[in-house]
Amino acid sequence: MQSLLDEIAAEALADPNPGSVASYIPELAGIDPHQFGIAVALANGEVYSAGHAEVPFSIQSVSKVFALALALGRVGDQIWRRVGREPSGLSFDSILLLEREDGIPRNPFINAGALVATDSYLAGSQPREALGELLRFIRAAADDERIHINERVAASEIETGHRNFSLAHYLASYGNLQASVEKVLGTYCHQCAVEMTCRQLALAGRFLVDAPRMPGLVSVERRRRINALMMTCGHYDGSGDFAFRVGMPGKSGVGGGILVISPSRAAIAVWSPGLNRYGNSKLGTEAMERFAHRTGWSVFGVPHREG
Amino acid sequence: MQSLLDEIAAEALADPNPGSVASYIPELAGIDPHQFGIAVALANGEVYSAGHAEVPFSIQSVSKVFALALALGRVGDQIWRRVGREPSGLSFDSILLLEREDGIPRNPFINAGALVATDSYLAGSQPREALGELLRFIRAAADDERIHINERVAASEIETGHRNFSLAHYLASYGNLQASVEKVLGTYCHQCAVEMTCRQLALAGRFLVDAPRMPGLVSVERRRRINALMMTCGHYDGSGDFAFRVGMPGKSGVGGGILVISPSRAAIAVWSPGLNRYGNSKLGTEAMERFAHRTGWSVFGVPHREG
Amino acid sequence: MQSLLDEIAAEALADPNPGSVASYIPELAGIDPHQFGIAVALANGEVYSAGHAEVPFSIQSVSKVFALALALGRVGDQIWRRVGREPSGLSFDSILLLEREDGIPRNPFINAGALVATDSYLAGSQPREALGELLRFIRAAADDERIHINERVAASEIETGHRNFSLAHYLASYGNLQASVEKVLGTYCHQCAVEMTCRQLALAGRFLVDAPRMPGLVSVERRRRINALMMTCGHYDGSGDFAFRVGMPGKSGVGGGILVISPSRAAIAVWSPGLNRYGNSKLGTEAMERFAHRTGWSVFGVPHREG
Amino acid sequence: MQSLLDEIAAEALADPNPGSVASYIPELAGIDPHQFGIAVALANGEVYSAGHAEVPFSIQSVSKVFALALALGRVGDQIWRRVGREPSGLSFDSILLLEREDGIPRNPFINAGALVATDSYLAGSQPREALGELLRFIRAAADDERIHINERVAASEIETGHRNFSLAHYLASYGNLQASVEKVLGTYCHQCAVEMTCRQLALAGRFLVDAPRMPGLVSVERRRRINALMMTCGHYDGSGDFAFRVGMPGKSGVGGGILVISPSRAAIAVWSPGLNRYGNSKLGTEAMERFAHRTGWSVFGVPHREG
Repeated sequence: MQSLLDEIAAEALADPNPGSVASYIPELAGIDPHQFGIAVALANGEVYSAGHAEVPFSIQSVSKVFALALALGRVGDQIWRRVGREPSGLSFDSILLLEREDGIPRNPFINAGALVATDSYLAGSQPREALGELLRFIRAAADDERIHINERVAASEIETGHRNFSLAHYLASYGNLQASVEKVLGTYCHQCAVEMTCRQLALAGRFLVDAPRMPGLVSVERRRRINALMMTCGHYDGSGDFAFRVGMPGKSGVGGGILVISPSRAAIAVWSPGLNRYGNSKLGTEAMERFAHRTGWSVFGVPHREG
Repeated sequence: MQSLLDEIAAEALADPNPGSVASYIPELAGIDPHQFGIAVALANGEVYSAGHAEVPFSIQSVSKVFALALALGRVGDQIWRRVGREPSGLSFDSILLLEREDGIPRNPFINAGALVATDSYLAGSQPREALGELLRFIRAAADDERIHINERVAASEIETGHRNFSLAHYLASYGNLQASVEKVLGTYCHQCAVEMTCRQLALAGRFLVDAPRMPGLVSVERRRRINALMMTCGHYDGSGDFAFRVGMPGKSGVGGGILVISPSRAAIAVWSPGLNRYGNSKLGTEAMERFAHRTGWSVFGVPHREG
Repeated sequence: MQSLLDEIAAEALADPNPGSVASYIPELAGIDPHQFGIAVALANGEVYSAGHAEVPFSIQSVSKVFALALALGRVGDQIWRRVGREPSGLSFDSILLLEREDGIPRNPFINAGALVATDSYLAGSQPREALGELLRFIRAAADDERIHINERVAASEIETGHRNFSLAHYLASYGNLQASVEKVLGTYCHQCAVEMTCRQLALAGRFLVDAPRMPGLVSVERRRRINALMMTCGHYDGSGDFAFRVGMPGKSGVGGGILVISPSRAAIAVWSPGLNRYGNSKLGTEAMERFAHRTGWSVFGVPHREG
Repeated sequence: MQSLLDEIAAEALADPNPGSVASYIPELAGIDPHQFGIAVALANGEVYSAGHAEVPFSIQSVSKVFALALALGRVGDQIWRRVGREPSGLSFDSILLLEREDGIPRNPFINAGALVATDSYLAGSQPREALGELLRFIRAAADDERIHINERVAASEIETGHRNFSLAHYLASYGNLQASVEKVLGTYCHQCAVEMTCRQLALAGRFLVDAPRMPGLVSVERRRRINALMMTCGHYDGSGDFAFRVGMPGKSGVGGGILVISPSRAAIAVWSPGLNRYGNSKLGTEAMERFAHRTGWSVFGVPHREG
């Protein structure tokens, strides 16, 4: 495993075309795209990593996985009255299908749906408390108390997040927000601004791996369902392509991170800040394709072949 | 396994609300919805079945899986220049996204994309020859020479298929058909009119199972990719829900059949002609949810637990 | 003319089905729908009226005509870089086409386009000053210093206007607002909350009539163009129907008012608070159809026939 | 008037950028774009013309005006159950809104709606008879028996008209065609292939002018309504712009012709085969803007000022 990761990291770091860093969040726009990290947290407790696996990055939309888990813990299957479970076929911040469907977002991994999840785990409490609970969840999953929120990034997103404000007001106009737009957006932008290293993110992702020693934060049933949603909706309008190429559930963020789950074996985190045309990490996606090919960990093939 | 299937079939046949039979294909409109069959073809060669597993039905869109496999065999990855790999988020015969995307259908499992696949395996030959090849493929997969096309159903679909003619002319207007609209539609409607029993369909589906004794009609890589497409796009705008509930790749047809793949273990076929609001078999979908729950065969959980 | 208006008012007030009052603005929801007023301000200076022509009502979107005139006065044809001149084919607060067209609203009479017009006449000044200028414009046109803004209605709209906030943030996300979302919305909601009677509105509308004694607030060329926009876009997705039935340029508001222009003869105002399915006054639209039929004032027929 | 037309023709013919000829109808693709004709048929019987006013061209979608008049004569206001009266906001052959609205086209001047009009005047008769009636209508309006259909153009359109076949099958799938797709399309393509000179088209357009000596083929009421539809829907997604710039009802065709009506004064025909981005004649539109400016014939201004 270590030599595989080293190889993949070397290849990624040698790529002259790492994609472009997202420019719409000022705090993130200045990051050097020539960075790449990868980490694998196995079900047996071992952790492997390579490249810039210890550099902290903004997890952005990867946080939607934790937010959904927390919201499900709070309100259970009630949440499915307010958000769907279908791929949207459109980009992450699209408002189009929202209008066709009376304010019910397509799924909890596009921005509109994630706002509903945030509103669900807010559930009447103050943003500060809710964010505290979210951090406790992530820290417990990763077994690492150092994980924190970057306040400057959060502030930067609140200031420039007109598109998210637009989505939130849109939801509110259909009565699909319980807290105020300001509270939901404030919480949401802080949640996106959680910072982790690849190593921390891989460890935090273990709560979605179905194995004895993993952190038991959600039930087996729920774990499977979150993985299913990551498979069909985790990469916006590039979800089908990721399933086709990589064959494992994953959730990407505009900060360049991707969390990928091999349901019975491992949680994997890759990071490289340059993006492809879907807004997903370019080198990260390519690395995961290579990783899946080499390990045979696609859920669509035989699981017991690889060593 | 046998007792599980018996139980599932008994429950399905006792359901007072089997959904409504599709009415837009006159030849199929008269079928009794109170029927249910299930069959499982295991990787070890054993086959189990229950209910009306020996009643032939029209596989309709389940044929799109065989058509795609054949088209990939003919033209290889060239096909991805003419059709995408993303869920559409819209119904099976929608023309909406086609217009937004210059005549490139979203994926090969919605009607527009399946027409491109049919055009691809036609590849200059006559419909009769191409359909002969398709039948040979299906018969080889199922190891059953009796599988045939119901000519009356095919004729009925050609006569009433204005929506498909509309899609085909639309594709042609963008230069995304090579054969004539008439040839493509004629071939497509015959392909949809293939008749099989659950038992035959489960056996035919084994070419997508990754195990030593399975029919080696497509490469390991391609098998995984077809399974991935079935997972993200196999149930139209109900694909996300099927992944969430069942957790295995599947492809449904308006005739009430569903082919489901457990990638390393088995091919499963269910059939019940009543449909839910997405146009997928109502009892079939519910039965598969029960089956997945009881067997733990979701690809999103641990594969080695069940006996 | 007086007997015609009396007849039309009597018929309208006898109608047992006046439509439903808009419920989404709390301050307006309680209004009695069984009210109807009409007033005609002729080019020769005479004014006729009937029914509740002296009852003040909230002009709401009729204000978009004054806002556009003011914006054109401020920034001239520059405004057409930021907003189109085409009917939208969709409802007044739709966000759909906005997404297809990169933040350029279809026309200045749907809400998104009107927000751009408001932003244009704000032009760096404070909302209070800009609203002062708008009131001066309207008062000059109507020659009536009593016309004012209803602060409670404005406050009510700001509080509940999630859809408009959504549109404004959407525009801002494309850089198509210069002032802050809060300033634009605040100004917009006050502009919509201008109150007038039918008599006042008819008088105020004279600046769009092409005759010697009319208030010369805009040039002949601009007057024609505003009339053209009212014809093609003045009634949202009911614009074509209004042109077909009435044949004169008009602009409706959700408060139940409609301002209609007979370009060389008169400005006409009708008001009745119940709405039809397009969000336009039901009795008002029907009355205008009768008025157009009786006077022959359609711009699509011979103008010089009627006395 | 003669000197005005001479001036306008000279300016148009001197324009180095006449737009591009439509390429999708092979028979029309070879036409020299550096041609321009204009003709005006006044209510008093006088006819003026300039430029290539005697060169025959394919009227294409201008024929939709005659088709609608004929359909209204056949089925009356029943047609409005099958087609709307609203601008579509989309291009001439769009299928998008059709899907949102259950097979009811937006208006009779986009292709889908024109197919419904053609189906309406077919009304059970054979294409040959129906086309005979259409020609009689046009010849009577123009008082010219030489007007005919170009069979080669019609055949060329039938052969390459995949988009129109798509629309027709789409309508048929919703039950919104009474005749067969083949008959409707055959008739429609012949109707589009009517050939006229500017002089003939201006004369034929007089049936929409409201004056004593004009051919009385439709009632006053219907004339006004057809003019209203031409104003709001006559130039596809460029209708608002034409109303804004020219201010008279008009209908364009992809052959480069435009028929414009000054309701009480004249019918005007311009022709130049190069198109702008909406698919309307570039020089023709610009010439009409100049004509409207010089004559003051906009319906949105004072009609009695000009001599």
